[in-house]
Amino acid sequence: MRLARPLENLIDQLLKLPTIGPKTAQRLALYILKMPENEARQIAQAIIDAREKVAPCSTCGMLTDVDPCAICQDQGRDQRLLCVTEETSDVIALERTGFRGRYFVLNKNFHLMDGFNLDDLHLAPLIDQLASGKVQEMVLALNPDIDGEVLSRYLADLARPYQVRVTRLAHGLPVGGDIEFADEITLRRALEGRHDVQP
Amino acid sequence: MRLARPLENLIDQLLKLPTIGPKTAQRLALYILKMPENEARQIAQAIIDAREKVAPCSTCGMLTDVDPCAICQDQGRDQRLLCVTEETSDVIALERTGFRGRYFVLNKNFHLMDGFNLDDLHLAPLIDQLASGKVQEMVLALNPDIDGEVLSRYLADLARPYQVRVTRLAHGLPVGGDIEFADEITLRRALEGRHDVQP
Repeated sequence: MRLARPLENLIDQLLKLPTIGPKTAQRLALYILKMPENEARQIAQAIIDAREKVAPCSTCGMLTDVDPCAICQDQGRDQRLLCVTEETSDVIALERTGFRGRYFVLNKNFHLMDGFNLDDLHLAPLIDQLASGKVQEMVLALNPDIDGEVLSRYLADLARPYQVRVTRLAHGLPVGGDIEFADEITLRRALEGRHDVQP
Repeated sequence: MRLARPLENLIDQLLKLPTIGPKTAQRLALYILKMPENEARQIAQAIIDAREKVAPCSTCGMLTDVDPCAICQDQGRDQRLLCVTEETSDVIALERTGFRGRYFVLNKNFHLMDGFNLDDLHLAPLIDQLASGKVQEMVLALNPDIDGEVLSRYLADLARPYQVRVTRLAHGLPVGGDIEFADEITLRRALEGRHDVQP
């Protein structure tokens, strides 16, 4: 049996998305065909609206519908602390911790292994901020993988002329994690980062 | 931090879909914002096209973009065998088994528990087929739950005037299933349905 072509096409389109396999794509497509028509249209319209109205902030690179973004406009934030992340989703996670500095989002869309050009990163707005003299510390919140290592060194070099302290997030055991099951690199980092127990 | 409103809206829209939780919705939304613009538009357009061009077949109820659907038009199918399913997705599964009769899809969008009216099922095309005299056997391929039980009895009653044999899919242990872990209802059905071992 051949599926209706527009249904087949919808399944193919949904398969482009991460975490969606063939079974889920079929289930979602059939669900979309069964839900009220206006609700299905709202999903399509939300995709179009998001693409039309959301873009990286020209100052910090975070995805936003106002430019500069709400965080860049917020005068109550600590201007001395600049946190560099790979993605807007990392900012969302960091905001939940109560961090109230500012951000610079790299919008990194390559993997080191695939070969990439660091010039593609559009770092000019970051350099402007480092050169402004307001930033005292640049916190590198990059993923603990090879790309994160390479980028961290590259960004640390970039910051050197501007007398900005460069720090990185601590590595170690995740809270609730079990030493027995920690991989050796994480455990080595946890040992290197050991600190005094507060009395 | 407030997310960009169109991004927040896209996350809310994706949350309407089954199997999509808040974390996946955020991940999908951010992915959609990062993928090439025309690919994102293709997803939106596929939703709109599917809703505009796909509808239940007027003969069998299966979701199709041509009416009558390809299966109803297929003269090579056994017209004597009519298989009743709840959803188009069940037809897709049954086609994979090599079944080459015809179908009637109920497009059941209610649960017995929520209270429903059997008149909502649009059974007129099914009655037409039973009355045509071509159908010799109606195979009920309904889910093994309370709704499936009630519907099976209802449909068997419906077929009685037409001298059509009414059968149901066998219940029993799933292939590869373990007796130890089978629930008691499945195991009881497997016992009831026991058959002679072929020599």
